[in-house]
Amino acid sequence: MTSVEAQNQSLNQSLSSRAQSLETTLDKFLPRMKGGEANLIEAMRYAVLGGGKRLRGYLVTEVASLFNIPMKSALYVGASVEMLHAYSLIHDDLPAMDDDDLRRGKPSTHIKFGEAIAILAGDALQTKAFEILTWEDVSENPDIRIELVKSLAEASGSNGMVGGQVIDMEGENRHLTLPEVINLHAMKTGRLICYSAEAGAILGQANTDLRNHIISYGRDLGTAFQIADDILDATASAEELGKTAGKDNASGKSTFVSLLGIEDAKKEANRLISKAIRHLEPFGSAADNLRALANYVITRRN
Amino acid sequence: MTSVEAQNQSLNQSLSSRAQSLETTLDKFLPRMKGGEANLIEAMRYAVLGGGKRLRGYLVTEVASLFNIPMKSALYVGASVEMLHAYSLIHDDLPAMDDDDLRRGKPSTHIKFGEAIAILAGDALQTKAFEILTWEDVSENPDIRIELVKSLAEASGSNGMVGGQVIDMEGENRHLTLPEVINLHAMKTGRLICYSAEAGAILGQANTDLRNHIISYGRDLGTAFQIADDILDATASAEELGKTAGKDNASGKSTFVSLLGIEDAKKEANRLISKAIRHLEPFGSAADNLRALANYVITRRN
Repeated sequence: MTSVEAQNQSLNQSLSSRAQSLETTLDKFLPRMKGGEANLIEAMRYAVLGGGKRLRGYLVTEVASLFNIPMKSALYVGASVEMLHAYSLIHDDLPAMDDDDLRRGKPSTHIKFGEAIAILAGDALQTKAFEILTWEDVSENPDIRIELVKSLAEASGSNGMVGGQVIDMEGENRHLTLPEVINLHAMKTGRLICYSAEAGAILGQANTDLRNHIISYGRDLGTAFQIADDILDATASAEELGKTAGKDNASGKSTFVSLLGIEDAKKEANRLISKAIRHLEPFGSAADNLRALANYVITRRN
Repeated sequence: MTSVEAQNQSLNQSLSSRAQSLETTLDKFLPRMKGGEANLIEAMRYAVLGGGKRLRGYLVTEVASLFNIPMKSALYVGASVEMLHAYSLIHDDLPAMDDDDLRRGKPSTHIKFGEAIAILAGDALQTKAFEILTWEDVSENPDIRIELVKSLAEASGSNGMVGGQVIDMEGENRHLTLPEVINLHAMKTGRLICYSAEAGAILGQANTDLRNHIISYGRDLGTAFQIADDILDATASAEELGKTAGKDNASGKSTFVSLLGIEDAKKEANRLISKAIRHLEPFGSAADNLRALANYVITRRN
């Protein structure tokens, strides 16, 4: 086995055991109930449990581990960001938005529960993501909890994820330049991925220098992730993706692939991943999983 | 002028000057911008600015004033809850939900901006409501800010406002008992009204006894508000309401009016308002506006 293969194997084990821990945490935070809200909770559970790579939750916990933060705290923050991410997917899939019937190989939440419950389940998952960050189990230090709430809000609101989603929609029917595509994805997906890494550093009360290293890692990883997503959309099958494939081309959308071509898009993703990995230098071998994750992000097939 | 008339006049002046201050604060928190998100910000502004009684924001600031909290802090928290409320109205009005074209006498947000922008504007207003509470201008004490975030999340999530909305939807096609209707409205509208009053007490670091008085006031006020809403829906015109009237009866919904009849519903609202006012006893004349507000809630025509 080469050293890269060994690293990948170690990452895969780490990813899947962490995904399991996140799943257990999410399950605990959304207990089934009787009464009129039962259906809402079921829809929230449907959207957030049982699937996904848990890239965001993994980032939180792996960065937190660089600062010796107890796994329980990190899992709480990881579960919070996974709920935020799940809310965005539910709303993205709605008929008025991307109108997507398939998500992670299963019917989208609005197909399974109807549109009204899907909208409300997304709303309640966003609320819960913020609520979790206020719990003392996240940190005894209220300054840390407030900073997490603030950073999550900034990453996901009108200047972050939701703003990026709007720019994406409004740009669908015109040609975007490369800087516009970079900015749109930095907002739409990059900010939340970057937050996930930063959240680990916030938990760890990292000094400014180390925190900037983590933010830079998260930023480059986020852009590379999106380029890889565009490449996958253009090359993978729906079966591999667990969602509709080839949508970008069909909708005439400007993407990294439409602007750069597949080969140059791959080169740019590789360049960003090398850069992301260089930002991890101060952390030594403790950051090996984060290095392997960076490579994984551009080699995954779904 | 009778003493009741004098109290009402004083309340009206106080309400309208506070509404103006809240408007200025909300305007400042949502600056217009260029770029692709411009339309999103416009939709957020459209939904939250220029209208409404600002009952929730008023409650925050009036209760905060009992504890001598600077108006600026209270206005920030008031603006936050008004954003949360506005998000819920945008989503409630969507075609998949109540499908309402009219709100405060104007086209609903999705009629004006389209469904996709309306969904995202609601999402971003929720996010902003939480973000504002993390700002140091709210309070230098991070414990207070965290408690506000926590209380707002609990009041508005799956066990609060959104949960109540689901119970309301699921109950539309069957007969509900009075306790079920009370519970549904305690969740759907009561929790956020109660939070608004409680937020003032949180800012004021009220002791447990005073805080419980404020919570009890908010709870009774919230239920009375909803009974008054049901009465208005049954008796007022669309012109008076600024939204579709007579919807409850048309949809065969169980309401306080359908269960109690108009006269007994009025009696129950009056009883709750007397009870709400009694909870204000410890605050003396400083709470006169809150007393007048309680009376206003059941005498308003919109």
